[in-house]
Amino acid sequence: MTDPAGTDRRVSRRGLLTGGAVAVGGTLAAGVAITAARPHDPGVRPEPVPAALVGSAVEPFHGARQSGVTTEPQAHAAFVAFTLKPGTDRAALGRMLRLLSDDAARLTQGRPSLADTEPELGLLPARLTVTFGFGPGLYAAAGRADRRPASVAELPAFRVDRLQPRWSGGDLLLQVCADDPLTVAHAQRVLVKDSRPFATVRWVQRGFRRAAGAEPGRTQRNLFGQLDGTANPQPGAPADTAVWVTDGPDWLRDSTTLVVRRISMNLETWDLLGRTDREVAVGRRLDTGAPLTGAAEHDEPDFAALGPDGLTVIPDFSHLTRARVTDDRQKILRRPYNYDGTPTADGHADSGLIFAAYQADIGRQFLPIQRRLAERDLLNEWTTPIGSAVFAVPPGCPEGGWIGERVLA
Amino acid sequence: MTDPAGTDRRVSRRGLLTGGAVAVGGTLAAGVAITAARPHDPGVRPEPVPAALVGSAVEPFHGARQSGVTTEPQAHAAFVAFTLKPGTDRAALGRMLRLLSDDAARLTQGRPSLADTEPELGLLPARLTVTFGFGPGLYAAAGRADRRPASVAELPAFRVDRLQPRWSGGDLLLQVCADDPLTVAHAQRVLVKDSRPFATVRWVQRGFRRAAGAEPGRTQRNLFGQLDGTANPQPGAPADTAVWVTDGPDWLRDSTTLVVRRISMNLETWDLLGRTDREVAVGRRLDTGAPLTGAAEHDEPDFAALGPDGLTVIPDFSHLTRARVTDDRQKILRRPYNYDGTPTADGHADSGLIFAAYQADIGRQFLPIQRRLAERDLLNEWTTPIGSAVFAVPPGCPEGGWIGERVLA
Repeated sequence: MTDPAGTDRRVSRRGLLTGGAVAVGGTLAAGVAITAARPHDPGVRPEPVPAALVGSAVEPFHGARQSGVTTEPQAHAAFVAFTLKPGTDRAALGRMLRLLSDDAARLTQGRPSLADTEPELGLLPARLTVTFGFGPGLYAAAGRADRRPASVAELPAFRVDRLQPRWSGGDLLLQVCADDPLTVAHAQRVLVKDSRPFATVRWVQRGFRRAAGAEPGRTQRNLFGQLDGTANPQPGAPADTAVWVTDGPDWLRDSTTLVVRRISMNLETWDLLGRTDREVAVGRRLDTGAPLTGAAEHDEPDFAALGPDGLTVIPDFSHLTRARVTDDRQKILRRPYNYDGTPTADGHADSGLIFAAYQADIGRQFLPIQRRLAERDLLNEWTTPIGSAVFAVPPGCPEGGWIGERVLA
Repeated sequence: MTDPAGTDRRVSRRGLLTGGAVAVGGTLAAGVAITAARPHDPGVRPEPVPAALVGSAVEPFHGARQSGVTTEPQAHAAFVAFTLKPGTDRAALGRMLRLLSDDAARLTQGRPSLADTEPELGLLPARLTVTFGFGPGLYAAAGRADRRPASVAELPAFRVDRLQPRWSGGDLLLQVCADDPLTVAHAQRVLVKDSRPFATVRWVQRGFRRAAGAEPGRTQRNLFGQLDGTANPQPGAPADTAVWVTDGPDWLRDSTTLVVRRISMNLETWDLLGRTDREVAVGRRLDTGAPLTGAAEHDEPDFAALGPDGLTVIPDFSHLTRARVTDDRQKILRRPYNYDGTPTADGHADSGLIFAAYQADIGRQFLPIQRRLAERDLLNEWTTPIGSAVFAVPPGCPEGGWIGERVLA
C-alpha cells in the first residue's frame, strides 16, 4: 500500500465499480418487475447480468438487514465457523466484530481491507457478501444470553442424523459468498486472519452453484440432478415474510436465523435407481422439476390425483409431500450450495449439499418441516446429515456501525 | 432417459448450443485479430463472452490436437490422476480410452454421456475440455515403452522439493476444465465411474482462477496477489511453437507434454514481507505486473539497469530473472490454477498453486527453467513443491476416433 501508482489504479477502478453497481441495480429491478407480471414462471430473469459486470458487481453491506440472505445466491460460498477463545468477553467481541465488519464493508465494495497484505485481490467484489451468524456460545460469552432468540439452540436429534463434530456447532459463522472463487478465498483469508486474536477456526465448508450467467433465471440443480429450491418463497414480500423478524426490540428486529446442515448424498446408491423411482422419491420430474401431477416447475401439486394403479401419483413418502408448506409464514428460504470432495481410490464420490436455510423462527418454520422429513421422506435412503449448526443472524448496521452492536450494547 | 419430454427439451437445447458455439467462435476470432494488431497488450480481449453464453459456450473435442492446452483457461479445473489396475493391458486400455473419449466427446458438446445417470447435469458444457495425459506407467502397461517421449519420466529431484506421494505420479491424467464448477463435478463423476473397471483414483486436485467474465483480458492473479502467467508465449504461432511437437511419427506429431506440480505457498511468512521486498523477490510490480524497470506488464525487463545503490534494479535471484526465457522454442505454456484448502484451527492457510505447464519437450524447456529456479529463485523461501507428475499429451482424434489410438495401435 506504499505504491502511488497502485493507489491511482484503485481510484480509477472505484469509478468503474460505482458505475457497475448502478447498472446491476437497474437490471435486477427490471427482473423483479417482470417476475411480478409472470407469477407462474417466477424464476426467470430475462436480463442476465452482463459478463463484464461479473467482477465489478457489488451488493450492499450497510443496511437495516444483512446481505447474503435474500440476495440472489452467488456461485461460490465459504461457510466459516469459529470457536471463541476463552478470554473473548463482551468487550473483546465488540473489538472483533468492529474489525470484521470493517473488513466486510470494504471488501464487499471492492476495496482492500485496512491491513490487506494482498490489496490487489480485494478489488473485484463479484457480488461479495459477508453474513454474520451468532451461535449460542457467542451470547453466553457476551453475557447476553437474554438476547439469544429462543430457537437458536442445538437442534433436537433426528433419527436420520449421523452428525460429526468436525462439521457441527460454532460460536460465530461468517458466510462468505461471491461469484468469483478467488474473491471468496481472499475475503476468507482476511477475515480469518483478523479473527485470530479472538477465535479459532472450527470448520470451513466450501460450496458452489452454477457459475454466474451460466443458466440465468433457472433454479439450481444439486449433484443428484434435482432442481433444488423450487418451493422457496418468491422474492419480495413472500420471502421477507418468511425470513425476517419484523417487530420486537431493536436487537431482534430485522434479524433472521440460519440452519446449516451438511447433507452427504450417496451417489453410489442413487445411481443404481431408475429414473421413475427417483421421480417418485422426489415427487417431481427430474428434467423440468414439475410435480408428477403437473407440467411445469411451479405448477401446484395435486396430492389427491390417482394413477392407473389407484395409488396417489405423488406418494405420501415423497420429498415434495413431506417438505410441503403453503403458508409463507411457515416457509423457509433455502440457499444451499453443492460440495464435492475427493473421491476414494475406488472412485466413490464424497458429494453432497451444504443445506443452508433462513427463517424468522427455527422452531416455527424449520423444525416442523425437518420432523416430517426425518419421519418418512424417502430421500433419506440416499442422504445423511453429517453436520449441523444454528445461528442467529443479527440486524445489519448503518455506515460507521458494526454487526452485533445492538446485540452486545 | 426414458422420458420423451426430457428428450424434446434436450433437442431444443441442442439448437441453442449450436447457435451459442457459432457466436462464441466469432467472438474469439475477433479477439485474436485484435491481439495480433496490438502486440504489446496481448492479453486484452475487448469482447468478453456474454454472460448468457457462459453455460452454453463449447470448445471442440475432436481435432488434430487435444483441447485444454492452448484453450483460454477456464475458471475451474479438476486434475484427476489414475493408477492402472494390474490387469489393464493394451487391449483393456483401448476399451477404457474409447469409453472415456466418448464421454468427453459428448459432455464437452453439452450432451450427456451414454450411461449418464444425471443427464440434466450434462447439458451445460460451459467450455468444458477433457485433456488426456499418459504417464510413464501407461506406456509400460500397453507394451509401448518405445512410444513414450523420452522426457516423460519422473523429474530429477530438486533440493527445494518436499514431494508427497498423495500428490505425485499417475499412469493416466484427465484434466477437466470448465467455466462452471457443477459441470466440472459432473464430468469428473462420469469419467471416474467409467474408469473404475480399469483404474483406481490416485489423486484429485481441484483449482480455480477468476470467474468467467470477472476480469476479461487480464492475466490471472495467484493467492500471493501476483499476476501469474505474464511471460507465457503469446497465443497463436508463438504458443504453438512452444507447445506442440510438429514432426515425427503420427503417434508423436501434434502431441505435447504436461508437468503438474503442487506448489504450497506459505501465506503466513509471505504476509510478513513488506511490499518492496515482495517486488524484489518477484522482479515485478505487484499492482501492474510490470518489471521493476518498466511501466507496463509486458514491457521488456532491463536486467542491466542499476538503482541508486549501484545494484541491478532486478536482482539476479528474482523469480523474473531465474524464469526468463526469450526464445519461443524454449518457453513453456503455464496454465496454473489456485488451490485453497481448509485452514488450520489457528487460521493458517492451506493455499497454493496447481502449477501446470505444457511444452513440446520437458527436457529442453521445463527442466532448464526449473533448475535455475531451484538454484536461486528467492521465491523458494515462500513456496514448496509438494507434488509432481509428468504426462505425455497424445495427439487428438477425429470424430469416431479415440484419444491414444495412434499410441496404442
